[in-house]
Order: sequence, then structure tokens, then C-alpha cells
Amino acid sequence: MPSEKVLMRGSNVVGEAAVRAGCRYYFGYPITPQNELPEYLSGRLPEVGGTFIQGESEIASINMVLGAAAAGARTMTSSSSPGVSLKQEGITYLAGMELPAVIVNMMRGGPGLGNIAPSAADYFQATRGGGNGDYRTLTLAPAGCQELAELTFEAFDLADKYRTPVMLLGDGLMGQVMEPVVFPDYIDPETLPKKDYALDGAKGRGPRKIFSMYLGQQGELKDHNLKLQAKYDEITDKERRWETYKTDDADVIVVAYGTAARIAETAVDELREQGLKIGLFRPITLWPYPTPALRKLAQGRKIAVFELCLGQMVEDVMLSVGERAEIYFYGVPGGVIPTPAEVVEFLRSTSNGDGKVGRRIEL
Amino acid sequence: MPSEKVLMRGSNVVGEAAVRAGCRYYFGYPITPQNELPEYLSGRLPEVGGTFIQGESEIASINMVLGAAAAGARTMTSSSSPGVSLKQEGITYLAGMELPAVIVNMMRGGPGLGNIAPSAADYFQATRGGGNGDYRTLTLAPAGCQELAELTFEAFDLADKYRTPVMLLGDGLMGQVMEPVVFPDYIDPETLPKKDYALDGAKGRGPRKIFSMYLGQQGELKDHNLKLQAKYDEITDKERRWETYKTDDADVIVVAYGTAARIAETAVDELREQGLKIGLFRPITLWPYPTPALRKLAQGRKIAVFELCLGQMVEDVMLSVGERAEIYFYGVPGGVIPTPAEVVEFLRSTSNGDGKVGRRIEL
Amino acid sequence: MPSEKVLMRGSNVVGEAAVRAGCRYYFGYPITPQNELPEYLSGRLPEVGGTFIQGESEIASINMVLGAAAAGARTMTSSSSPGVSLKQEGITYLAGMELPAVIVNMMRGGPGLGNIAPSAADYFQATRGGGNGDYRTLTLAPAGCQELAELTFEAFDLADKYRTPVMLLGDGLMGQVMEPVVFPDYIDPETLPKKDYALDGAKGRGPRKIFSMYLGQQGELKDHNLKLQAKYDEITDKERRWETYKTDDADVIVVAYGTAARIAETAVDELREQGLKIGLFRPITLWPYPTPALRKLAQGRKIAVFELCLGQMVEDVMLSVGERAEIYFYGVPGGVIPTPAEVVEFLRSTSNGDGKVGRRIEL
Amino acid sequence: MPSEKVLMRGSNVVGEAAVRAGCRYYFGYPITPQNELPEYLSGRLPEVGGTFIQGESEIASINMVLGAAAAGARTMTSSSSPGVSLKQEGITYLAGMELPAVIVNMMRGGPGLGNIAPSAADYFQATRGGGNGDYRTLTLAPAGCQELAELTFEAFDLADKYRTPVMLLGDGLMGQVMEPVVFPDYIDPETLPKKDYALDGAKGRGPRKIFSMYLGQQGELKDHNLKLQAKYDEITDKERRWETYKTDDADVIVVAYGTAARIAETAVDELREQGLKIGLFRPITLWPYPTPALRKLAQGRKIAVFELCLGQMVEDVMLSVGERAEIYFYGVPGGVIPTPAEVVEFLRSTSNGDGKVGRRIEL
Repeated sequence: MPSEKVLMRGSNVVGEAAVRAGCRYYFGYPITPQNELPEYLSGRLPEVGGTFIQGESEIASINMVLGAAAAGARTMTSSSSPGVSLKQEGITYLAGMELPAVIVNMMRGGPGLGNIAPSAADYFQATRGGGNGDYRTLTLAPAGCQELAELTFEAFDLADKYRTPVMLLGDGLMGQVMEPVVFPDYIDPETLPKKDYALDGAKGRGPRKIFSMYLGQQGELKDHNLKLQAKYDEITDKERRWETYKTDDADVIVVAYGTAARIAETAVDELREQGLKIGLFRPITLWPYPTPALRKLAQGRKIAVFELCLGQMVEDVMLSVGERAEIYFYGVPGGVIPTPAEVVEFLRSTSNGDGKVGRRIEL
Repeated sequence: MPSEKVLMRGSNVVGEAAVRAGCRYYFGYPITPQNELPEYLSGRLPEVGGTFIQGESEIASINMVLGAAAAGARTMTSSSSPGVSLKQEGITYLAGMELPAVIVNMMRGGPGLGNIAPSAADYFQATRGGGNGDYRTLTLAPAGCQELAELTFEAFDLADKYRTPVMLLGDGLMGQVMEPVVFPDYIDPETLPKKDYALDGAKGRGPRKIFSMYLGQQGELKDHNLKLQAKYDEITDKERRWETYKTDDADVIVVAYGTAARIAETAVDELREQGLKIGLFRPITLWPYPTPALRKLAQGRKIAVFELCLGQMVEDVMLSVGERAEIYFYGVPGGVIPTPAEVVEFLRSTSNGDGKVGRRIEL
Repeated sequence: MPSEKVLMRGSNVVGEAAVRAGCRYYFGYPITPQNELPEYLSGRLPEVGGTFIQGESEIASINMVLGAAAAGARTMTSSSSPGVSLKQEGITYLAGMELPAVIVNMMRGGPGLGNIAPSAADYFQATRGGGNGDYRTLTLAPAGCQELAELTFEAFDLADKYRTPVMLLGDGLMGQVMEPVVFPDYIDPETLPKKDYALDGAKGRGPRKIFSMYLGQQGELKDHNLKLQAKYDEITDKERRWETYKTDDADVIVVAYGTAARIAETAVDELREQGLKIGLFRPITLWPYPTPALRKLAQGRKIAVFELCLGQMVEDVMLSVGERAEIYFYGVPGGVIPTPAEVVEFLRSTSNGDGKVGRRIEL
Repeated sequence: MPSEKVLMRGSNVVGEAAVRAGCRYYFGYPITPQNELPEYLSGRLPEVGGTFIQGESEIASINMVLGAAAAGARTMTSSSSPGVSLKQEGITYLAGMELPAVIVNMMRGGPGLGNIAPSAADYFQATRGGGNGDYRTLTLAPAGCQELAELTFEAFDLADKYRTPVMLLGDGLMGQVMEPVVFPDYIDPETLPKKDYALDGAKGRGPRKIFSMYLGQQGELKDHNLKLQAKYDEITDKERRWETYKTDDADVIVVAYGTAARIAETAVDELREQGLKIGLFRPITLWPYPTPALRKLAQGRKIAVFELCLGQMVEDVMLSVGERAEIYFYGVPGGVIPTPAEVVEFLRSTSNGDGKVGRRIEL
């Protein structure tokens, strides 16, 4: 039975959804602007017999996540941009060991310490992997509280299904927004399928090992890489997600995710009222990117990419669209949140092709 | 006066070139397969009055680099793949603070600990930034000892010129190769231009500050991001480097860097002997990628991308080539070094378009 | 209702007694020869809804203990000699903040890494405080499994009663011994008195602070020191414990604690059989030392101090006995466990005053 | 040729004396009230080709000291009370490995963070060893700038002579005092005797090992302990130091060290003017304690112990004096520096035996 509608802040929504998904182990180290999430879980997890630990550092925390995941638990960490940089070694370990975990990045301005305002400049880090080696992190980009609830919940399923770390990529604004939410039903972690790899005490069975080091001279690591690649190919086939909004007759399609997509949607509505045929393509998975859908949609239209950074997702748009459509880009960095009016100007300029706002991308 | 030709191992070449470039501060933490480099510098730096420190960890080391750079010194660290993952926070700090430093990654197999064999799966990490925020790391990919000497030497100039971290991206094989080298002349660090930002003791002048945190509410971080972007644009304009080999009449052009390019070159020679018109395009800067040169060259030919991983640089090839040419990819992961014969097969298959080796990339 | 008699290994006895005392939070880092204790608790604590954490290091662990204690919980850490050296800062913080906690040191040979054999060379560290400042750690020295159970159990009461860290000082041998034990009744931690200083969420009350830093210029730290001293005086008055064995008519009294006392007891029995009037004085609290009892008992006899080190407790014997009796010392360092026969020889030599084994202490 | 007299602050005196003693490697982490010392050395060491490193932490720093000592260099760290607590593991390692090093503790109030005012509550930690195992740290207690210079200088000789860590125990006041100093001559570290244990590169000789772990089953650690003990006995025989002041005819002898001794000396002068026969016994080595000298001097007089803490050295006085004299104690904790007038009252009260100030110690 789904819960009733409740009004809740975004950060708390993530925490509550994690608990309902059966997550009982959270490890993290504080950083603005996502401290509301660990604060929520520090109170909530003990209520359900779970464990909340503020580790000694970001690195301690991600490695505690690794340990809990190796023991078969649903587990999670969260941080914001520079804190997530510190977790890159842990994330590539999780990927190499094929361990499920959910990592939340409520992005802030960068590089370095930057500021504490909402930003979206960690797209490359999330989708290309800031860690070493051939690996991919399934990356989910919610655009509102209801989706925060659903994607957080689902992130745990996806992580378990594919034995892979999953990144939930939000920003400080999304963590602060209060919206009505209907949560999914509780999952009792005891009812989840047993994991046949979990290091849960070798009683009545042989020992197990989980590792990312393949030192054999017979191509063992290559085989492991090919196995991982097959998994990533399967994820790419099955898990691409996106949403379209008023795209059917659109001449111009704005591509944006997360907070930027919310601003873009308002801009689309405003331009529609003015009679312009504008639509929105919103990727929900950033990796795998919804390439085929965007490729198909782009044909014969103009594509306007709007990001809260100086241009990162635009590469995936280019890789998706190729020369099928003109691509324009408008980015706002530094934790500055543009008004819908600014995006309206960008989209109008894209529509006109006058180049007044944003820039044409050459491929 | 340039030095005479000497026979030297790749790792030592990097160390010696760093010393000649005026680097006097090395900080690092051991990891195979690059320990020969710190070993060399641990003996060499004291001879020239320099300082070699094995830090408590990779993170301690990169932050010591940050400190030395802030004090105005030429400084360097080195590691291999998982060790470089640990340095991502430090690198984004360097970028945000606009501090020059040289970071050497002698790549090994991944993800996670992987193995200690040569690999090239950290291309995304190096070129897209494993740290947070909008920043770019100038990435140099040498393909032999002479180039190791020259690019290491030049890396310090580039770092200083643009006040930016520079990544030297090699692999374990390159560190072990012994080849004759002619080194550039010594630079006396005392003769280098004074840095007007260096925190070198506020004697006879006002204090200085170096930071990456811009908390101001007037768009200070945005301004900083735009300033950084202007710098990255300038680097993109001026510093793209590449080499072509027998491309003039080529029907098929193989694109490869580093150790992969050496193998590819042998394959090209072999195929040329067999009468096939094959050439090699070798990017020397991975960021900025030599997009215009490759774009121009690709027109009307087939492009064969060969990487020692499951496909990362291929994205930059796609972004460069677009639909101007068919793109084929062949990657070998897991620290396995293919023979030239395997690459010959890939290139022959590409030439035939028979799809027997490698795969056609759809854009 | 007390438990029935069970046969159990010493390390497990400590763990089980801690659980029965209401301890629900254990934090530690592995070191031989005490790993059986954390191993036991890693399985046992979850059964009672408790939390077992292997911290990132000894320092992380002792500071997690500090955190749990500040939150009002019964909490514990354990280690062996060099690991306890790393905890000294944390212990002085606990003392300064007046937080209850139980610290187990299963001593091994030293200094430095030494070896992993049983030893007793950390007496000074435990009783004089290896941390900074005027503080004292209540130190309990069990000499068998039943006492391990009782003193561990009571350590939590003492820690709470006096708001002070309590050290349980054993050694590797004691952790390995298997003996029958009757455990005290379970304490439900929910039934323990609420701590009016605990940082347990300021609901319906004002905020609280716990700290060891007193920067005020009005002698605040001095006042705090005097308050602590008054507490230590009270502990000294009320909590001294010791045991005597066949001392009534003894000419020679051997003073020993822990494993050394067990060996000494066998030696006493053997010498009694031979007709010598030998007795044993066994301190159970090492701080506060049972000075008045020993002082009174020493009058007119010879005192033989036997330690598994080169002489540390002997200082407390000297401070207790003064010139009331001749004091002889015999110590065996380096994790070597002497046989009762060796101690017999020492005691016989002491009885004769022939100086063949051990040495006369001059005061 | 000795230097001319210069006026200098205590902290700088320590730094300058270290440089003159041939120390070229300083490693430390900042803490008030001793930051002037690392600040001085951060500028001074590079002038003489030395290395100053602010480590990542106190633990990193003491282990860097260990590394430099193992390589044969004269090396030093400094900190204040809680920072020294963190170094205890490193110090016991130095002792176990028989490595020379100088550790400066400019004591502040405790326990825990306490305050930043001068104190003397780390006497136990310094003289009994806060680390594990049977070891001793030669502890020097200077009482003025000239002695700071001389004892710092000599500390390096003692450390090398006995292959042992040496503690220089001062306090924040001593670091701030400005007094005229004549420094010893410079020692060129190149002229110091080569250390036949130093890990300085096994060129033309076999490899060496330095370790504190003796896992052999044939009593190897016991032998090592006995060897260490023989060294400590030799130090005890040869290196006890103290100073007496107006003790010849004294009825009451105040025992005090460091800053407390300076205050006591003023009090002695004042009481002498009033006609009381008071003298001062000032230990300069705290370990080994000048027991025989004090024992001899105490006979037939009253002993007044004055400490800037609640009573730690008083134990060594008791162990020295036994029942040969009445012992009175007066201690001021918490970083409060009493005036000479207060000490005058204590000494007058001791003289009268009226018990108004301080307390009689029972042995």
C-alpha cells in the first residue's frame, strides 16, 4: 500500500526513500549543502534498526559503504562535489568489485571548494568516472521531490540488479525544495533475495572472496573487464530513461536535466504561450544517456542544450545528435541559478538562429 | 647546450627531465608500476638541493604539491591509476586555485586495484576531470623516451604559463622502456620569472591569498569560472598537438596515443609493406584534443581507433570526426598488450569493412 | 538470575560481560593478541541490537568511543600495547570531558611493535596516563576468567559512576585461557539511569555541551582540574581493591597482578608445601593502588615484587611500603612467561636475602 | 668560536640551537603555544640546506622524524601537550628501534585540549612513557633561554650517544621569554661521526635493518629489552643533572623544575632576605631523576615540592627522599602561573609545618 501524500523537503525525501527501499546503513561525512540528508537519516535509521555513521572522512565513509555492500546490505553515502571527488577511489573499487551501493551527490559550485550554491558541473565526474579504469556508474538525475523519492528507491534495486554503484545526481536546490510526495511501499530488507556473493559469515558453506585485483597472467583482468562491459551494455540497452514535454510539434527542443530542466520547462510554457513551438527533452539517466531517443527526436529540429555549468552534457548531446540537427548551448556556471526569462531568451535566440544568447556548437 | 645522447629507462627519463626543468619538489606515495620514478628522484633531487618526500598517502602528497605550488615552486607528483583516483580532490583544488603542477599517471589495469600491467583506461579521468566542477587538465601523452623527456620538461612550462595542473599520461610499459635520449638544457629555478601570486613571505609587500572558495553573493564564482573558461579556450587554441605518420595518401587512418600508438605504427609499417595505404594519427595532447586536425584529415577516409581499454578516446574521435568518416574501434583492456599482428588484423578488417575485428561506431 | 557456569575463553568472557553490562557500542581496530574479543563482539552485538564498528584506525576508534559516550551510551574499545599508545590522545580527551568508557589493553611485548606474546610493560602508561594533563584512569587488573567477567561488568558501572574512562589491563595469555565462568545478570541499557549530560538531542530541553577546552581567563581550567582531582580523590578512597592469599603468617609477601599473580600463587603454594611462610598480595586496582593495605601488611616482612616487565609497578610498591620493609624485585620482559619454578627461586632467594635471583630495591 | 650574546625569544632559541647542533630535518604539526618554533625553523632550515615539513598530522610528523633518524640525520619535532599525546606510538617506536631524535613539548594546560597557558602536567607522560613497553625517554627540563640553548644543543648529542629519543620539556611561558643567549658553535652535520646503523643506501656494503618487532621464539625480545635496560642504566648513572641554589645551610629545600623553578628561585631570594634558610633543588634531567643527589641533600631538612600541576614529580621526590625528610607539596594546575608571593607562603608554611598552604605527603 503506497503512502499518503506528504509535504517534505528534498533531502528528507531521499533519506525516507532510502529507508523504504531497505537501506539500513548510511555512512557519510558532512558538507554543505546536503547535511539535511545525513541529519534526517541520523534520526531515522535507528528507528528501523539501521546504522548511521559519520565516518572520519569522505574516504572512510565510502569504504564503510564498500564493507556494508560486501556484507550484502543495502547501503548509501552522500556528499557534495569536493566530497565526491574524495570518494572516486572508493567508487572505482565498488565498480571493480561489482558491489551495489547508492552515492548521492548534491552538487555545488566548483572547481575545488567553489561555493555552496546549486550547480551541475560534476556531470563528467559522474558519467565518465572520476576513478580509474573502464567502468561506468549508473547515474540518475531527478528533477523534483516525487522523482527524488522514486529514483532513490529504484536506485537500490538497480544497484542490486546489476551489482554496481549507482549515482544519484542532484543539487543543493533540489535538496531544499518542499513538494508533496507519495512514497513507495516499505521493503523489509529481510525479504530481499539473498546475495550469493555476500560475505556474511561462511556458516555451512565455503568461503567467498570479493576483490578488484586480478593479478593472474592469463588475461584474468581482461576477462573481468569484458564481463563488466557486457553488464554495462545490458544496462545501456535496458535502463535508459528520459521524459519529453511538448516535443511532438516542436521546432526547437531544449535538452536539460535536474534543476535546469525545471527552469527550462517553465521557459517552454512561456514560449508556448507566445506561440513558439518549443519542447523539452529531459534525460533521467545521464549514464546510460538516452542517445537513441534523442537522436530520433532531433532529426530536423534545433537542439538547445541548457546546463548549470559551462558545458558537459552537451558532449553527450553531440554524440547523440551528430549532424542531424543544429546544436546550441547555453550554460551558467558558479552556482548562479538563472531565471526562466534568461532561458526564454536563449531558446528564442536558438529559434531565430541569431546567436544573441548561447553559442552554436560545431561538430 | 643540450646534453649528449644517453640510454635511459622511461621512468628515470621523467625524473631527470623534471629536474632539468627546475622542479625541486617531488611528493608521492608508492604504487607499482611507477616506483622507479620516485626512486630516481629520491636520489636525484637532493643532489640539486631539491626535496623528495614520500607523503603519508596519495592525498597528503597531492596537497603537499599544492603547498609547494602555492609557494611558487616547480613541483610534481606521480602515481598509477588507483593512486591517481585518490588525488582527484587535490587536482580540482589546483585547478580552482590556478596553481601549476605536474601530475604523472603511469596507468595500470583497472577498475579498482586491477593489475599492475600497462593500460590506458584513465583517459576519461585525465581529460574529463575526475574532480568536481568545470575545469580541465592539460593532458600530455608521450609515446617514447625522447618524448617523455621533452613533454615532461615542457609540462612545467605549460603549467606555469597557464597556472594550471598538467597531467602526463603514460603507462607502465613506457616507464620500463630503455631508449636513447637527448635531454633539454638545465633550467636554474632561480632564473625562472618570479610568480606574482606566490605565497613566499610578505616581505616588503602586502599579503596574498590563494583559494578556490568563492562564497560571495555577487556571482564571484561565476566570474571565476568564466575566467577559467577563457584560459581553457586559450589553451585549446594554442596547445593542441599531434603527429601524423604516412597519412597523406592513406585510406585508413589509425588513431592511437602512447604505447598503443607505438604498436599501431609497427602495424602501419607492416601493412604499408603489404601495399595497403594506412596512416597513423597520434594525438600528443589528449586535452585539448587535436580536433580540427583530425576532422580535416578524416574527410573521405576510414578512421580506426585503437585503445588499450574498452573505448574512451573514441568519444573524442567521434566528436572530432562526426559523420565525415566511418569510425571503427578496437580496444584491449585489462593490461593485456596486443601484438602488432592483432592491430594489423584490425586495420585490415577496417580497410575491408568486413567487421571481423573491432566494431563499427554509430554516431 | 545469574547465568549458569559456562566454559569460555578469556577474550570472549570480556565481550560477553560487556554485553551483559549494557554495552551496545564497540569500536576498535585489529591487533594481535586481542582479535578474538572484537571477533566475538562483531557477532554478539548485532544479536542485542548493538553496533560493532571496525574503525579506520585506533584513533578513529577511540574517538568513536568518545562520541558514543557523549551520546550517553555504554561503550568500549580494545587493543594491545602499540594500539593503546595511539589512543592516548583520545583517553585524555575522555578524561578531560568526564566521559565514561571502557578501554581494554591486552598487553603484548614492547616497546614499539615488540612481539605478540603476553607482557605487562604498559603499567606506567595505564596508571600514570600516557596522555597529557592531570588525569587518572581507573585501572583494573583481572587475574582469571571469572574476574574478567566481573571486572568487565563492573568497569561500566565505575565508568558511569565517576564519569571517567576505565582501563581493563590484561594480557594475551589471559585472553586465551579457558575457564568456567558465571556471568552477572543482563542489564537492559534502557533501564540504566538517564545521563543528564548526554548529547541525546535537545528535545524539550536546552542544549548541552561537552568539551575539554577551557580557554577562560578566570581560572576555569584550574577549577576544572580541582574538580577532577576531587573525583580522583574520591575514587582513591572508595575503589581500591586487592586480594591477599596466605599472608597472615607470611615472612615474605610477593606482590603481583594479573598473569604474574597466577604464576606467583602457584609458587606460593609450592613454597608453603616446603614449609616457607610465603603469601601473595594481589592488587586488583592498579590505579588507585591499594597503598594503605600494602603499607600495613608490609610492616616487618620482606616484599618481593614480581612483574612481567623490567619494573614499573615496583614504584607503587616503593611508594606504598617506603622503608617499612625490604623490597626485592624480579622482572621478566619481552613476552617471556616464566615458570612457577623461576618465581619459587626468586622468592626463596628473597626469603634468604641471598640476592641470587632478583635485586634488592634501595629507597 | 662561540657566538656573541644575542637577545632572543625562547622558541627561537630552541630552533637556533637545533640548527647549530646540526639538525637539518624538522617535522611537525602546528599547535599553540609552540608555533613560534616551527615558524622560526621554516625560515631557518632552508638557509642551511635543511628541510622543514609541516606534516599532515602529529602522527605523520613523528613518523617522518623516525624516517629521518633511520637515515642517520639529526632530526626533531615539537608540539604541545595533546599533540604530544598523539606522538606516543611514534616515541615508543623510536625507543624500540633505538633511534635518536629530539622531541620538544611546550606544555599547555590539560587534560584533553585544556587551554593554551603554560603548565607542567605532562611530567608522567614524559618520564614514565606514554607509549607501550619498557622504555625510557631522556627528559631535559630547561629553566631559561641560556639553558634552552645549551640543552637543545646537547639533546642531539645525547640522542646520538645513546641512540634514544630525548624529550625537551618546556612550557609556553619559556617559549615566550626573551633573554640574552650565547649559543654554542655550529656543528657541520657532515663532520658528525657516521652512524653504522643508518639506512643510507647500501652502496658497497650489505643491507641493514632497523625494526622494533622481535617475533623470534628464542627470547629475542627479552634480550632486546635487557640490552635497552643496560643502556637506561648507563644513562641513569652518567646523565643525571641538577642544580642547587642556596641549599648549603637550608632548613627547607624547594624542589621545582622549569618555569616553576624560576618562580621558586625568586621566592627563595625573598625568604632569604627575610632571614629564612631556604634553598632550591632544581632537577635538570627529569629522567633520569637526580635521585642520589636529592636523597643526600634531603637528610634532616624539609622538602617542599612545587609543581605547575596537581602533583606528578612529587612521586620522584618521594622515591628519592623516602622517609629521610618531611615532604610537602603545593601544585597549581590549569595553566595558572602563581606569583612568587604564593610560593613564599607555601615555603613559609612548610618551614612552620603549619599546613596552611600545600599539604604534607605521607609515605
